[in-house]
Amino acid sequence: MSETIIHAWGLAARPQGLPRPEDFTLVRLAAPPLAKGEVRVRNTCLTVSPAMRVRMSAETRGYLPPYGLGEPIAAAAVGEVIESRAPDLPEGAAVLHQLGCRDIAQGPATAFERLPDAGPPPELFLSELGSTGFTAYSGLVGIADCEAGETLFVSGAAGSVGSAAVQIGKALGLRVIGSAGGPAKCQLVRSLGADAALDYKSPGGLLEKLAAAAPEGLDIYLDNVGGEHLDAALGVANPHARFAISGMISSYNMEQVTETFHNLNRIVTRRIRIEGYLPGTDLASLRPAFQDQMWSWIVSGAVKPLNTVRRGLGTIPQAISDLFAGAAVGKLLIRL
Amino acid sequence: MSETIIHAWGLAARPQGLPRPEDFTLVRLAAPPLAKGEVRVRNTCLTVSPAMRVRMSAETRGYLPPYGLGEPIAAAAVGEVIESRAPDLPEGAAVLHQLGCRDIAQGPATAFERLPDAGPPPELFLSELGSTGFTAYSGLVGIADCEAGETLFVSGAAGSVGSAAVQIGKALGLRVIGSAGGPAKCQLVRSLGADAALDYKSPGGLLEKLAAAAPEGLDIYLDNVGGEHLDAALGVANPHARFAISGMISSYNMEQVTETFHNLNRIVTRRIRIEGYLPGTDLASLRPAFQDQMWSWIVSGAVKPLNTVRRGLGTIPQAISDLFAGAAVGKLLIRL
Repeated sequence: MSETIIHAWGLAARPQGLPRPEDFTLVRLAAPPLAKGEVRVRNTCLTVSPAMRVRMSAETRGYLPPYGLGEPIAAAAVGEVIESRAPDLPEGAAVLHQLGCRDIAQGPATAFERLPDAGPPPELFLSELGSTGFTAYSGLVGIADCEAGETLFVSGAAGSVGSAAVQIGKALGLRVIGSAGGPAKCQLVRSLGADAALDYKSPGGLLEKLAAAAPEGLDIYLDNVGGEHLDAALGVANPHARFAISGMISSYNMEQVTETFHNLNRIVTRRIRIEGYLPGTDLASLRPAFQDQMWSWIVSGAVKPLNTVRRGLGTIPQAISDLFAGAAVGKLLIRL
Repeated sequence: MSETIIHAWGLAARPQGLPRPEDFTLVRLAAPPLAKGEVRVRNTCLTVSPAMRVRMSAETRGYLPPYGLGEPIAAAAVGEVIESRAPDLPEGAAVLHQLGCRDIAQGPATAFERLPDAGPPPELFLSELGSTGFTAYSGLVGIADCEAGETLFVSGAAGSVGSAAVQIGKALGLRVIGSAGGPAKCQLVRSLGADAALDYKSPGGLLEKLAAAAPEGLDIYLDNVGGEHLDAALGVANPHARFAISGMISSYNMEQVTETFHNLNRIVTRRIRIEGYLPGTDLASLRPAFQDQMWSWIVSGAVKPLNTVRRGLGTIPQAISDLFAGAAVGKLLIRL
């Protein structure tokens, strides 16, 4: 039997600020033979996400350890089992896993989640039906306890979690305001159903733009940006507003995070609740209801998957760099 | 019947930064005769609190409107009914009200809460048995859902809410760390039962001091300071830490609040919940249980009331100024 070679992206250097394509290097690994209980998977599609940036720093500020230099980096991927020594995962099965950024993944069957043979296509489990959609849904339902008629502000509304949150918010009966960078993305956000979109890159203060878009104030803020967006949301929050914080991309590329705030005292005066969450671990009990609900929204057209698709393993370094440059809308998928 | 003259402190000028005694002026008001259903009360003790500062600015950032210039300012007080046209509140009854900063208060009986004839002395309802103690208790029990064995950090631990929180925390089985300004106050905090006290005025960074005092990290933070204290607490918070925010005195004297933070991204990575609260309105259902529990702690000696007492209406302007200069420990009471 011929030797299988795995191609995987590793960290060549720790990024200073924004990741650049040259911070990554393609690693070639000889795949060891499968042990009992293991499977080998050919990835068909994988994704990169801003949260990967946290693990690229030497001192992690995150909940997972830093990537080692030269070691393959992880990411979510879907693929097909091409060799199996695990009876539960036969050849041909579609699976989801977190070993991404490579063409071939292998390991114990427990590291792979089997996907349904019929129904949603596997790629959806990397985006709207996966952690992206679940981050939006669990933030609105599980953290913010949203109620129909309330006003929701979504930062990064043309992004992966944001574009899902805008559509889920509308499906749940909320008034939705989204922020995005530039007129084209704002137009996209409105086309997703948002009642208003604000361009954070246009001249003027974010607080004033948000106050104009939400004259009735905010009840819920789904934040994956932090920084000035968070400060502006505090500035127009209604009493008892709930802020579900799934990320703070504004600080991911800072080696020393220093942010200026003007409105944090409104946490007290408006009795605001701000809560960070990791949907996968903190809110896992909501996942079955989420997958049923989300798939029915996708089938009915209430939620339209929004992706930016690249092709080929070689596009990954540029894709990671583009994530932070705002060069993608929706979820960034790499089809292999 | 001779005319009754009320002496009340009003705002002479809106403070710029820290309130100074000359920002206040003594107003003399002729008391109108009582209408049916009204009572007249001679105050015996009143209190001033940092939250009063918020209403001294022209543009309130608070939940109550600004004080008018020359109009009497409000504060909590206890007193004795000296004249009554309300059957439920006879002469001699002890009452609590919010019309303070004056020698005589009068109005509809509904503005006065009758205090028990026996049991706790009235002054306790201005401090440990009143909103001060309730702010500490409801923050720990109602907002932070504290559990025995967890580690609590209390800012302003020699202050009114803080000194109550340290003692309540110990009574609830928590490990307690308090911050205070200067060695004498830190010694006081330890004498209240705190496991550790840190001096925020001593040389060195607050984050480092807090990390040294809480090598096991923080599970709960009861904050009435905000600013650098809040940032440091974020820096050493354990996963799923809960921050109950009852005040942000660090910003009360700023006309334009600008604060720098380094650790806000840990809201996400440590899944921290930060929640502002107004105990009186948000958590009122806890009050009966609180008063029973707190009185039994006071009777048993588990909680020792901590007050700074001034005497005479004339001491009020200096007392307000002293509040922000750290010149008082525990609750600042003015006996008349």
